[in-house]
Parts: sequence; structure tokens; C-alpha cells
Amino acid sequence: MTVHTEKPSGVPQSVTVGPIQGSRKVYAQIKERPDIRVPFREIALSDHAEAPIRVYDPSGPYTESLPAIDLNHGLPLVREAWIAARGIAATEPRPVKPEDNGYVPVDRLVSPCPAERAVRRAAAGQRVTQYEFARAGIITEEMIYVAHRENLCREAMLENAEATIADGESFGAAIPPFITPEFVRQEVALGRAIIPANINHTELEPMVIGRNFLVKINANIGNSAVVSTAADEVEKLVWAIRWGADTVMDLSTGRNIHNIRSWILRNSPVPIGTVPIYQALEKVGGDPAKLDWEVFKDTLIEQAEQGVDYFTIHAGVRLPYVPLTAKRVTGIVSRGGSIMARWCLAHHKESFLYERFDEICDIMRAYDVSFSLGDGLRPGSIADANDAAQFAELETLGELTKYAWSKGCQVMIEGPGHVPMHKIKVNMDKQLRECGEAPFYTLGPLTTDIAPGYDHITSGIGAAMIGWFGTAMLCYVTPKEHLGLPNRDDVKTGVITYKIAAHAADLAKGHPAARMRDDALSRARFDFRWEDQFNLSLDPDTARAFHDETLPKEAHKAAHFCSMCGPKFCSMKITQDLRAEMAAMGPEAQEQWAGMQAKSREFLASGGKLYVEEP
Amino acid sequence: MTVHTEKPSGVPQSVTVGPIQGSRKVYAQIKERPDIRVPFREIALSDHAEAPIRVYDPSGPYTESLPAIDLNHGLPLVREAWIAARGIAATEPRPVKPEDNGYVPVDRLVSPCPAERAVRRAAAGQRVTQYEFARAGIITEEMIYVAHRENLCREAMLENAEATIADGESFGAAIPPFITPEFVRQEVALGRAIIPANINHTELEPMVIGRNFLVKINANIGNSAVVSTAADEVEKLVWAIRWGADTVMDLSTGRNIHNIRSWILRNSPVPIGTVPIYQALEKVGGDPAKLDWEVFKDTLIEQAEQGVDYFTIHAGVRLPYVPLTAKRVTGIVSRGGSIMARWCLAHHKESFLYERFDEICDIMRAYDVSFSLGDGLRPGSIADANDAAQFAELETLGELTKYAWSKGCQVMIEGPGHVPMHKIKVNMDKQLRECGEAPFYTLGPLTTDIAPGYDHITSGIGAAMIGWFGTAMLCYVTPKEHLGLPNRDDVKTGVITYKIAAHAADLAKGHPAARMRDDALSRARFDFRWEDQFNLSLDPDTARAFHDETLPKEAHKAAHFCSMCGPKFCSMKITQDLRAEMAAMGPEAQEQWAGMQAKSREFLASGGKLYVEEP
Repeated sequence: MTVHTEKPSGVPQSVTVGPIQGSRKVYAQIKERPDIRVPFREIALSDHAEAPIRVYDPSGPYTESLPAIDLNHGLPLVREAWIAARGIAATEPRPVKPEDNGYVPVDRLVSPCPAERAVRRAAAGQRVTQYEFARAGIITEEMIYVAHRENLCREAMLENAEATIADGESFGAAIPPFITPEFVRQEVALGRAIIPANINHTELEPMVIGRNFLVKINANIGNSAVVSTAADEVEKLVWAIRWGADTVMDLSTGRNIHNIRSWILRNSPVPIGTVPIYQALEKVGGDPAKLDWEVFKDTLIEQAEQGVDYFTIHAGVRLPYVPLTAKRVTGIVSRGGSIMARWCLAHHKESFLYERFDEICDIMRAYDVSFSLGDGLRPGSIADANDAAQFAELETLGELTKYAWSKGCQVMIEGPGHVPMHKIKVNMDKQLRECGEAPFYTLGPLTTDIAPGYDHITSGIGAAMIGWFGTAMLCYVTPKEHLGLPNRDDVKTGVITYKIAAHAADLAKGHPAARMRDDALSRARFDFRWEDQFNLSLDPDTARAFHDETLPKEAHKAAHFCSMCGPKFCSMKITQDLRAEMAAMGPEAQEQWAGMQAKSREFLASGGKLYVEEP
Repeated sequence: MTVHTEKPSGVPQSVTVGPIQGSRKVYAQIKERPDIRVPFREIALSDHAEAPIRVYDPSGPYTESLPAIDLNHGLPLVREAWIAARGIAATEPRPVKPEDNGYVPVDRLVSPCPAERAVRRAAAGQRVTQYEFARAGIITEEMIYVAHRENLCREAMLENAEATIADGESFGAAIPPFITPEFVRQEVALGRAIIPANINHTELEPMVIGRNFLVKINANIGNSAVVSTAADEVEKLVWAIRWGADTVMDLSTGRNIHNIRSWILRNSPVPIGTVPIYQALEKVGGDPAKLDWEVFKDTLIEQAEQGVDYFTIHAGVRLPYVPLTAKRVTGIVSRGGSIMARWCLAHHKESFLYERFDEICDIMRAYDVSFSLGDGLRPGSIADANDAAQFAELETLGELTKYAWSKGCQVMIEGPGHVPMHKIKVNMDKQLRECGEAPFYTLGPLTTDIAPGYDHITSGIGAAMIGWFGTAMLCYVTPKEHLGLPNRDDVKTGVITYKIAAHAADLAKGHPAARMRDDALSRARFDFRWEDQFNLSLDPDTARAFHDETLPKEAHKAAHFCSMCGPKFCSMKITQDLRAEMAAMGPEAQEQWAGMQAKSREFLASGGKLYVEEP
């Protein structure tokens, strides 16, 4: 289903709406705060003995049954009353300048989203960030919201004594059996978690990023100078969150980016991240040497006022580190990193991002824009993994993390890149140590360089592992990585692959509720409840389509086999028949069955080998 | 390109032939044994300063430039002279019986492959298996062949002192810098490696499976009762090995399987594995209770005479273990395991595979069919991982491994299944311990159950990890797993995904030559040699197609950007420009650059922070 919005050309025309097949959107009301409604996706199962499964749902109102979506109007203002109550005053916004849209000629100008919003900015000394509230012992509405959101199914679990047995290896994380708002506050106050939530992004449905919460994933969208338009980008956002992206980074470059960003922000229920240096570079005509503090500062304010929730800031790319990349196989592969390296060498000066970091903190704090400290020197190949340049930068990011905290800001840290499996854990351990347990946000890492076209997989392997080791958010990689701009299918493939990695990590960490969905799906599989199996999967459409390729008939949805093995060789059917026969044979046979189970355990204890070992 | 063979319907009509784009087949002659020619795939690079890259190539003569393929005639008899020289006599083959082809009516009978071959069988006491030769201190031609094959690029590497620095974590494996035939012999003699090579599969290009060699992958093919034909299956074999499958299991069931198998074996350069219990079950009309030793024994001989290189034997599914599966979420999910469990309970008797294991060894030894001891009780869900049933069976497989060795047989062990990440390593460690370091051959494992349609990825994560930990061969999983029979695209996706997992494991283990291809590709990427980048990738066709989706012109193949970032934001272009500028500025600037590198290291040593830590 799609919703159409009548607008001039270049502006979003339609977006994908309606529930994922087999699911419905539900909003849970919090008892103490009925004004706070937390969204979930609920999957009803055909076996009525099975409780419906609630899953985490970042997709916003778009997946309601009859969503009232009007892109011109923007999404409902979930946070407006909360922020208003904090007494943060509206301010006169910075006027839009021609360079904000890349000096686009009038006839090619994309009009901005017409939704009107007040622009707020905290005064100096006025408490505004989630970090500041947390340090002051104050629980915000955002903290209540994410506590409830993270608790997903855990009420049910706590009732089931057997299932609460923690089973996992969390490498020193401290995942509680139940998340309270106070726990969230503590984690934010310790800097171990962030709630990216610009006060000017009131449409946001808050979420938390931290090692002791569910592993999150980010999807990148953004036009490039070569292809794609505004309409594509808003639909990419809606499409990415439909399949599970928890945050979205808008990496647009080129013309109209200010106005395209207004459409994205007003219509995004998830945090939006950007890399402000990209737009700053556009403003100076694309020459890194022409960048300066003034244009960068102006860009930060421009984007902060629009409501961007986190900024990638490559302040760790310092002048003395640049020569460390000289002998690398792939040099500098971060766009922001290479821009700053060029600037440093052109002027032979220390990076203005590093030198002005204090002022950057002041700006970001005033809107509660979170830092995503960029890894501009991340390795771009297996050969360059864990080298001196990468780790020098990481140490500086640790230094900056602590400084940003002292200024009241929320911080996460970006990480690699390309890393072979045996070098992944040292990245995580070093990050936790250097950066005082601030959340890690990694790109992959890719575990080999030899599979362009399949880098969602080369990196999905590394992402699952580093997520297990403690990374809080995984930045997706699509099949088009290194080759071109991802299209709609690539975005979906990237998101699903990273949902797999994140969920595999949650399971391995021993997240208390993670296995409920696996178990529900496995029971459905064993019971041949095909529809339930499809609906419980990360991508019901693909699971159903694959099944129907060879067995399209409706009757096959109840069949006790699939085309993989056929009816005679279906192990699950044989096992089921076995169990059914035993059940049908009455109490005597059942007693025998129970007796056999006891005997089996005896047998195992006693040995009982027929074959002797080789002398 | 395809080659057509004129034959009646139901028989292979055509197969895919010709080199992979950008590659050519080369045969390396061994100095001491010019009669032994070892195949490689060579990728020439457009930068003539770069040596061509040789990669391991299991694809057989099909990928020669002008292959002389005639499916009726079968492949060249690589091993005929070697085996003839060992004095193993030809024997009168067992006559083909109606049940071998599932009592198919004459009008639906697929004719057998007309290629004539002598059928050999070793006499009692006559040395025949690679294990027996190895224990006797004899180096076979197969050992020489695989030593050379595994050495891939290592000659070049040994000349390059820098690259020989071992960099990896092998968890106790003993990977030498250079593989000699004597090393292969030792590994086979210790039972740590196998060379699956039935004496009746003379078309085989030998390969080795062991923890101290390159990680291998297996692809499953096979018709099921529901769909697919003989022609499909032979083309699936050729297609799977084209993309890198090292062995292929024919899991066919239903009618015509004897004759279809003859087409597969006569035209396969890779080891073929089967699960004989499938055909035995067909012969008794599909009722597990009707199975007996006689029909099973007859099937073993039938398939051993045809040349099958390894048999999955589920002899570890013992009667007392079956009740241990009663409380599982997904019961028994191995087809062979469920068949044997049903048999054991129906007769309330110990498995005839276990009780007759001695006789099974005698049959398999006589043809050098390797054991693949099946894990009939492997977990089919995250919930069932590492449970009592699974580990009880694994202990029995250890017992049987040692017995099979004492009978002169080669052995590998099959492993799970569905296992969350934190439970993978214990599987590997236990297998090595219980089974005396016999090679492990695992299916995935899948690290979560919630992504049907993407189980190549859920399992690729587990496969890369368990490969790193020590698994010698990874059985692929396709996107259709749990949903239906894989088609041509699914087979390719499964193979490429598992090549990624195997290669990521080789890199992490510190395989001395594994990184050469990654580095060559990364250099090509950094130099914008797009064609080289495509050709070095596991799937040049897909990499090229993805690139061309947005930048189709030939001129873009030399472009210093792609559509992902566009020309202004390409970090690699910026870094290259930076390096070029430095180079062009003459000796003074270069000195400055070198001086800066030295200073950077000083700077790092001294600290040099601007920002103080939070008090």
C-alpha cells in the first residue's frame, strides 16, 4: 500500500504504508504515564495456545492499519509536550541561505517540507541533554519510553521461571532481567548509553543505544551527486525503518540537501544522523582546503535547528596521524577522514574540528545533538586493520569522549571497517577501555575483501561478532558497497542482514527475551504452521514467496512437508508421527517412553560402548 | 557458454562451460612427476607490476577455454594409471536391480551414463585406502596432488619475507608455511585429514579435508520427490563447482536415482558424497521400519561400485539416545537421524548401523569410501543446541571414529545445525577431543531461527566462526533452507556465501597465503582498477553488474569514483590526490612527508592531548 501526497516535482510523492503481513501495530500505554504510548508490532499465531509475539518496532505510524500520513504535515509530535514542559524557549531560526541547497537554480529547487515547527535552543547553563538530566538524577519521558520499549516480552518471561535462566556470554556487559526507567537513567549518566533526541525533532519515537540494551542497527540513505532524488530518499527512510532500521543516517551530498533534509526530519520517527562536513564541503565548492571553522559552525547550527539527532564529527583525524596512513594499502577510506586529512596537510595545521571541539560541544549541547565521534582513519582493507593510524585516532576519540561528557553531551564512537575475525575483539576491548564504555557504533566490520557484491555478508559476519562482544549499534552495509548507490532492494537486504547480526548478538549475549521469537518460530516450524513461520520471520514476504515458488497452493500451507525433502523424507514429519504414535498407544506405552528416558540417562552415565578404541 | 549433448529426454542436455570472466584455467606440472597436472584458476591483472593471482579451482575441465566436454563419455580419467599401478583388480559389478531406480516404469526410465568403467574392489588385506598408505609411510599420487594444490601462491610468498609473518589465531591447528606431500601423508596417517577418493571415481581431481589445510565447502544437490530432473542435477553440480564447491553431496531421493548418480559421478571432478540410507528407504517403499541390514549393505556396495567418495552413516543414533529428544522444541531434524530413530523404536532394538559398523567398515575400506559420520541428532533450533542428545551422539561418533581407523578407513564427522554464537566453540572443542582430531564437517551452524529466506546468512555467520575455530569443511545452506528446493540462483548464492565464510576463516586462522587475494583486490580498489576488482572477486559477474547498474559506460571502468559517493566525495580519490601532490612536489616535500611520519610516531609516544579528562 502507498500513500500519495500532491506536491510539485522533486518532492516526496508517495511512501509505503500499512502493516507488515501477519502483523499489527499496537501501542502500549504506561500505567503511571498514560500520555506515553509505546509502539510494538504484534504477530498473532494460528495456534491459540501460543501467545502473540510482540517485537520491537521502529517503523513509526507508517505501519498502522489505516495510517493518517500526510508528508506535508509531518508525523505527530510525540515529544512536543515533554520538551515544552522543560521550559526551553523557542528561538529565531537562522535564515536559509542559497549555499544550504548548493546554490541550486530556482527552477530546480526542491521546496522545503511545509510543516511548521518552533525552533528551540537551550540557554547557556540551562539543562537540556539527556546526559545532563541523567547526571542530575532526573528521569525524562524519553527514559521512561525506552525502558518500556526495551522490555519487550520480558513481563511474560519473568512469569516463566524456566525461561529466565540467563544463557549467554556477555563479556562484562550488565544486562538486567528487567529494564526500569531508573536503570536507563543510570546507564545514560554513566555515558554507557545514549538517547539520540534533538529537542527540535519532536516527531521522534525515542530509542536507546547502549551495550546493556538490544543491539541496534543503522541504515544509510542519501542521494549522491550521481543519482537519486528527494522522493527516493524519503521513501528509502520509510522503507528502511519498515524492515527494522533503528536509526537512519542521511549522507546526502549535492544540491537541495537542506530542503530534502526537512522532508526527512519532519517525517522520521527514528533518530536521524548526518555528517555535517559533507554539507560544509558543498558550501565551499568541494575543495577541502577551503573549509574553515565558520562554515562548519554555521552548518552545525543549520542542521541542529532542523532537528538532526546525531552528528558524525571526525575530530580524531589529527595532523600528526595523517602520515601514519602513507604506507597503507587503501589509505584513508572515510569520506570525512580524507576531507579532514587533506585540510590538515593543505594548511599544515592541526584539525579545526579538534581545536574547536570545545565550541562544537557548546553548539551540540544546546540542542541535545549526540556526538558520533567519527573514525576517519578506519581501515579500508584487511591489510590495514588495527594499525597505528586507526588506534591513534581511537585514543583521541577516548580523550574527546570524556571532554564531551564534561560539557554535558551524549557520545557514541564509530568503529571499523575491514577487520579479519581474529582482530575484531581487540577493537571492542580497546574501545571500551579508551572511551570509558561509551557506546560503540561500528560499520560491519568486513571480514574479507574478496567479495564485492556480497559485502552485506562479509560484514554481517563481523557485525554479529562485534555485536556479541559489545557493540551497541551496527551500521549496515548493502550488497552495493564499494560498487554503487543502493536501491530499494539493496536497502532491504542490508537491513534484514543486519537485523540477523543484531539478533544473533542479542541471543549470544544472553538478552533475557531474545530467544522468545526464535522459539516461537521453531515451534511453528515443527508443527508445520507455515503461515506462523512466515509471519514470525524477519521478512515474511520473502519467506512466503520462496515457499510458494515450488508449492504455491493454499493447501500446501498446512502440508506436513516442503519441497526441500518431500513428504517421505521430512524428518520433522517422521519425528511427529513417532510422538503421535507413542501418545496414541495409551498409558502403558507412555510409561515405557518415560522409563526409556530415565534409562537413557543411566546408559549415558555408565558408558556402554560396543566398539573398542584403537590400541 | 553451454555444451549440448544429444540424448533422450531425462538425460543431461547441456552444462555451463567456459572460464569465469577475467580468469583462465592453468595446469601446473609437478617437476618430479610430470604426469601429475594440478589445476588452478589464474586472474591476470591490468597493472603489469602486479603478478597474476592464482586461486584454488575445483571446477574441473568445464572452465577451460575450449573444453572438450561430452557428458556421455565422462571426464578424463585423472587417477586411472595411479590406481591401476596399485594392482587393485577389477571385479564383476553387482547387477543393477529394478529397486535401484525406484521401480520406475520403462517409459519413465532415465538411461544410465553410457561411459564404461572397470569396477575395482580391494581384496581383504590388500592396502587400498589413503589412510592405509599413509600409515604404511607411503606417499600416494593423491597426496602429491593435494600438496601442490594447497600450496597455491605460497612459493611467491616465501620469497616475500614481510608477508610470511604469520598473523592469525589458529586455536591449536598446525598450519605449516609450506605443504609437502610428506606433510599430507602425516596428517592423513594421524586421521587429522582425509582425501575422499573412491578407487572407482577415477575422474576425481583429488582434494584434502583437514584443519591444517584450506577450509573447504560442500554444496548439496539432489532431486526430491516433488520436483527436478536428471538434467537439472548434473548442471547443478557443474554450476556449484564453477563457483567454488569443493565437494558435492547428491541427496537425491525417488526414482531413477541410480542412473542419475551415474551421470553425476562420471562427470564430476570433485568428491561426491551420499546418504545411502535415503536410497535404502526408497527400496523398502519408504517405511523406516522395513529397513534391514541386507538392503542397506546392498546399497552400500551399489554406490561404492559407482564411485561415491564418502557416505554419511548415521551410526551414532543409538536406541537409548532417542528418548533424549522427546522434550526438544524441534525433535530430530536430520532425515537420516529420524529414519534411524523410527527404526530403533519400531523394533525396540539397537541401530543396525551401530551393530553392523564393523561390516560397514569392511565394505567402505574395500573401495576407499570415506566415512562422514552423520549427526542424526543435531539440533534443529536454537533451543535444542548443545543438548544431551546431541552430545551423547557426538561421543559415540568419537568411539566409531577410532574403530573405523583401526579398520583402515578414512573418517570425518558431521556437526550442527542451529547453534547460537556463544555455544559454537564448545562444539568444536568437544569434537576435536572426542573424535581424536578427525576433520569436522558442519552444517552452518545457523545462529538464529528467525530469518527463513536468509538462512545462508544466519548460517554463514556461524560457518565463518566454526571454520575459524577448526572445522575443516562447511556444508552450505541456501536461501531456500526450510522453505523449498534451491534453484540455480540459490545454489550460487549458497556457494558464494560459504566461500566467504571459508575464506574469512582461512584469514583468521593465519593461513599463510590467504591474504594475497584480499590485498590484490584492495590494491585494485585503491587504484580504481575496476576490471581487476571485479575479476578478483568471488563473483565477477555480480560485482560488474552492480557497478554497471548506475555507471554502465565503458569509460566509467577507469573512473576515479563510483555512484556510491560520486567524484567529489570519494575518499580514495582524495587520498590518492594527496599522495600524488606530495610526490609531484619534489624531493623537499617528500623529505617533509618522511619527517612527518617520524614525528607522528614521536607524537604518539609523548601523548600530546589538548583536552583534559573529566575530573
